[in-house]
Amino acid sequence: KKSFRVVVLPGDGIGLDVIAQAVRVLEVVSAASPDIELKLEEHLFGGCAIDATGQPLPDSTLQACKEADAILMGSVGGPKWDVNSKVRPEQGLLGLRKALGLYANIRPCNFASDSLLSYSPLKASVAQGTDIIIIRELIGGAYFGERKELGQASQPDVAYDTMIYSVPEVQRITRVAAQIALSANPPLAVHSVDKANVLASSRLWRKVVIETLENEYPQLTLDHTLADSASMVMVASPRKLNGVVVTENLFGDILSDEASVIPGSLGLLPSASLAGAPSIADALSPDFKSTHGLYEPIHGSAPDIAGKGIANPVGTILSAALLLRYSLGLDKYAQAIENAVRKVLDNKDIGGFELRSADLGGSVKTTEIGDKIVEVL
Amino acid sequence: KKSFRVVVLPGDGIGLDVIAQAVRVLEVVSAASPDIELKLEEHLFGGCAIDATGQPLPDSTLQACKEADAILMGSVGGPKWDVNSKVRPEQGLLGLRKALGLYANIRPCNFASDSLLSYSPLKASVAQGTDIIIIRELIGGAYFGERKELGQASQPDVAYDTMIYSVPEVQRITRVAAQIALSANPPLAVHSVDKANVLASSRLWRKVVIETLENEYPQLTLDHTLADSASMVMVASPRKLNGVVVTENLFGDILSDEASVIPGSLGLLPSASLAGAPSIADALSPDFKSTHGLYEPIHGSAPDIAGKGIANPVGTILSAALLLRYSLGLDKYAQAIENAVRKVLDNKDIGGFELRSADLGGSVKTTEIGDKIVEVL
Ligand SMILES: CC(C)[C@H](C(=O)O)[C@@H](O)C(=O)O
Ligand SMILES: CC(C)[C@H](C(=O)O)[C@@H](O)C(=O)O
Repeated sequence: KKSFRVVVLPGDGIGLDVIAQAVRVLEVVSAASPDIELKLEEHLFGGCAIDATGQPLPDSTLQACKEADAILMGSVGGPKWDVNSKVRPEQGLLGLRKALGLYANIRPCNFASDSLLSYSPLKASVAQGTDIIIIRELIGGAYFGERKELGQASQPDVAYDTMIYSVPEVQRITRVAAQIALSANPPLAVHSVDKANVLASSRLWRKVVIETLENEYPQLTLDHTLADSASMVMVASPRKLNGVVVTENLFGDILSDEASVIPGSLGLLPSASLAGAPSIADALSPDFKSTHGLYEPIHGSAPDIAGKGIANPVGTILSAALLLRYSLGLDKYAQAIENAVRKVLDNKDIGGFELRSADLGGSVKTTEIGDKIVEVL
Repeated sequence: KKSFRVVVLPGDGIGLDVIAQAVRVLEVVSAASPDIELKLEEHLFGGCAIDATGQPLPDSTLQACKEADAILMGSVGGPKWDVNSKVRPEQGLLGLRKALGLYANIRPCNFASDSLLSYSPLKASVAQGTDIIIIRELIGGAYFGERKELGQASQPDVAYDTMIYSVPEVQRITRVAAQIALSANPPLAVHSVDKANVLASSRLWRKVVIETLENEYPQLTLDHTLADSASMVMVASPRKLNGVVVTENLFGDILSDEASVIPGSLGLLPSASLAGAPSIADALSPDFKSTHGLYEPIHGSAPDIAGKGIANPVGTILSAALLLRYSLGLDKYAQAIENAVRKVLDNKDIGGFELRSADLGGSVKTTEIGDKIVEVL
């Protein structure tokens, strides 16, 4: 029996509600499988960790994360921990990404079920068939370049951040994009987004993406879109970006959030942050090596509905599916979860139960959705 | 008779088509008014200037722009002038912005006519009533901070740009936002967009915006949205951003383009880039002073339809209206143009003529739209 350690970080706000359902799903998978075992362990992280220890990412949590095969997170933050305070929940998240070298953030954006089209802010004719995987570089660029706060720089009146990229940083994220493009058959188109008409870091980005794909993955098709133009296309005709969209940290932050509203609710979408290209071998094959990764729904901690038990757990449950696929080489279990979710959302064969949580205008509880998905699974 | 000099820069591609119609409109205004005279003079700019002189912004053009009261531009660029060549059309645009100190880019995003709602990629219920004026800082931030290309930095393998802001730069753009907010009655809400949870330059931005408004415009309401969140709200519920959205250069580039697809066609929207707060006094009052500004439609040079005479001139004609309002203190003429455009688009009272250009799925020519607007005017 192959055993995997999964660290669970519920975090703050609705993180607790949604994580509980994803944990149930993973436990079902573990119990149902004769070959593998998932060992789940919870740790403090985010605002609740600040309250308990003074730090958003306590050493014991970081240590456990380092030793784990993968990490499943809920969400962090809330009004209690102010943007202006010295210690903030996001610092834990940024610190964890950096400490574990999670340079590849992966966000699929598609309709888990066509029955959700009507929830999109886009016209159905525009939104239908959107199927984009955004791959955002996560530990470079302006997020981690040298910065000076107001008062710290040599000029008294300025503050700055540095958008900086190195050739190897762009090479490795390009390879992740290529691997993901190749995991589909036929391979997905690769769209690179930059601002090469203005920024030097974007000119490096574009050059390295082109060279890496030409040299190492000549079978893939590549095009380039400027970040401003990409933000238009994402709304006006998102299908044009179908495939893999690879971009740097700050553009990725903005564009992946923009994309995430297309499927109608943030509550539906998962994400993965990886320290390498996804594991391709099956977990049970002798040459399998897990890829370290952090998995979380894309929504925030939603303090306004925290504790009410009405958050949508689907994004977190689909994050658990990505965890099985990308880190643990358990693609068939990932697919089983995704199929169960689709079935529940499509709401066929299961008694006409109108399974819509508050984010989709319904009144079904977090646990009821979990129940149904576990049942179908 | 008060006389104003207006430099006209048709530029490249459809710039020539659309500028011609806006020039007609300005000539009608000039001819119809007993008190003022507009002296229009054309100059080379962009790709065509590269072909003629080797430079996108020839000295004679720059000189004329400096001496003018305002500048009306078409669009620049095209596949002929490659992203990788040393001399590129955009450099002319960036150079002109910087040389004239055009730090405030203003982009209204609304439905010139409710008859256009059906062209929006957003559902009508989501898009209807969107009325946002984006105010983008235009000559600071990563666009003009220190940069090193790959091979130029002290580390061999990197390239970088610097997102830098000074206190006075943020103060002056905040004041422009405040003046525009106050030009409506009741004043518009001010939404500031930054990424203060990560970037030092954004923390300076937020601090200065807060202080400037609190000290100088305490009557205005202000809120703050993170750039990633703003890009979601812009699609999911754009009315939440109604009012004035003020942001730094790079975020403004992305968010203003995102916003611009909401009204259904880029061909409809104008922009202004100002060297100060808009002139408030009437042009004929003794204390009137023109505010230097560059006015252009937000669309590009659209090489695919250049010269076909089918581009939509409305964005350029509305830019001419903004020129009259913001630079020349001729608000009533600006309103007359805007009313004429609305009437033509609404297509009432004017014989049921289905006035839709190619961008709106119609087959009406650039000149026909110009004819109709001039006629109504
Ligand atoms: C919380 C914040 C620092 C973070 C980011 O900007 O990366 C978030 O927006 C995200 O996208 O995960
Ligand atoms: C052409 C380009 C340099 C320019 C910019 O990025 O500012 C354009 O996108 C714009 O928004 O006017």
